[in-house]
Amino acid sequence: MTDAAPAKPIKTVTACVLLIGDEILSGRTRDSNLSYIAKHLNIMGIQVREARVIPDIEDTIVSVLNEVRAKFDYVFTTGGIGPTHDDITADCVAKAFGVPIGPHPEAMKLLAEHYATTGAEFTPARQRMARVPEGGLLIDNPVSKAPGFQMENVFVMAGVPMVMQVMLDSLSPRLKGGATMLSRTVSGQIGEGQIAEPLGALQKRYPDVGIGSYPFFRNRVYGTSLVMRSTDSVMLEEVAGEAAAIIRSFGVEPVDGE
Amino acid sequence: MTDAAPAKPIKTVTACVLLIGDEILSGRTRDSNLSYIAKHLNIMGIQVREARVIPDIEDTIVSVLNEVRAKFDYVFTTGGIGPTHDDITADCVAKAFGVPIGPHPEAMKLLAEHYATTGAEFTPARQRMARVPEGGLLIDNPVSKAPGFQMENVFVMAGVPMVMQVMLDSLSPRLKGGATMLSRTVSGQIGEGQIAEPLGALQKRYPDVGIGSYPFFRNRVYGTSLVMRSTDSVMLEEVAGEAAAIIRSFGVEPVDGE
Repeated sequence: MTDAAPAKPIKTVTACVLLIGDEILSGRTRDSNLSYIAKHLNIMGIQVREARVIPDIEDTIVSVLNEVRAKFDYVFTTGGIGPTHDDITADCVAKAFGVPIGPHPEAMKLLAEHYATTGAEFTPARQRMARVPEGGLLIDNPVSKAPGFQMENVFVMAGVPMVMQVMLDSLSPRLKGGATMLSRTVSGQIGEGQIAEPLGALQKRYPDVGIGSYPFFRNRVYGTSLVMRSTDSVMLEEVAGEAAAIIRSFGVEPVDGE
Repeated sequence: MTDAAPAKPIKTVTACVLLIGDEILSGRTRDSNLSYIAKHLNIMGIQVREARVIPDIEDTIVSVLNEVRAKFDYVFTTGGIGPTHDDITADCVAKAFGVPIGPHPEAMKLLAEHYATTGAEFTPARQRMARVPEGGLLIDNPVSKAPGFQMENVFVMAGVPMVMQVMLDSLSPRLKGGATMLSRTVSGQIGEGQIAEPLGALQKRYPDVGIGSYPFFRNRVYGTSLVMRSTDSVMLEEVAGEAAAIIRSFGVEPVDGE
């Protein structure tokens, strides 16, 4: 076994996140789900390439869903799966896939048991939360029981962050990640405009490593964080070393991290 | 003047927000600009109908920009107008509009004066921040001087929240709002599933008032906030009164606000 087989290039796996809800577009609710989902998926080797915030309007949800599920490997939605009239996501997913929707036996059983335990009535409105498009696979929700569901490459989750987060844990074993995007951050108390030229030259020499430059101003200190991203850990370290050298060449001590 | 002229229906003015930047899609930065912009525009009678988070990739920015500027009355972008190689928004806007881009004399003057005052060198990288697509109108930036710009119905702003916010103030006199979306919130310590049925019936009776239902769990208290939205203040009060009555009918005291 002296000769290793040439490494097979690892596929890039992409995702789109759809945040569904008028409350995010009106500014009432500040979304926290996108950054959580992006970080979680990134660890699994799945890269979020687009996110959209769309209103609770059937035509919009159906057409956007059909557009993005064809374009990305995975689609994750949050919001619109509760018991009230404005929760229309499940119906829209059924419509997008062209399948009927109805009560899912397992979901009905789960919810009936849950409400029997709490003593609350299992109202028709609450039964709505057991409706799943035909062919849908449940996503477990240990927090509040009402499940999410998966239709092919689309994962439908709740909007409440605590619930969304356990659903994401529940569904993760079904995901197949590709190359993991690694990142390294090097910062310095120096303006972006000062290091921009050598930094641009560095980017040109390493086109496969994304180099992002982010100014910061914290505790009366300003500076720049350089974030290098690559699936290749060796090349990443090389570029991080060169980025640190650029900062040092201006007489500023670079630090690891932001 | 006993007979008033019939009121002219007020146009709905729509907007799309484009958040441009790998750092939001990777989860590194949690966006705060969307909710700020949405609230600000809403007060001016402009309704954000969609938001997209897209990466620093030229083809994506150009095609998304051309799609949404045709679809919405206004488009607001944040991010990608700094001095470094990853700041490509201005070039992408020029490409989307099919016009050349070059140094804007007024922007060059502003920045030259600024750097003369601070004593920092006005490097070629910093001069990049004065590049504006042909026909672009500057957007004033009292915080860090480097201006944003407007191309027709597209407003290009910085990503740093403090800078974005002053740019939004600077450009606001150029916007023409339509009907202002008013909102009223009524909350109660009651589950969504309990009030869902009468609430759905209320929504059916008032199709022109959007009624959103949002569960909350705070300080060990759970409940539901009902958010009514309409451009008609009289109808809004009617629906808010009925929503409160629904909550009260379950023996729960409704409160104004969330």
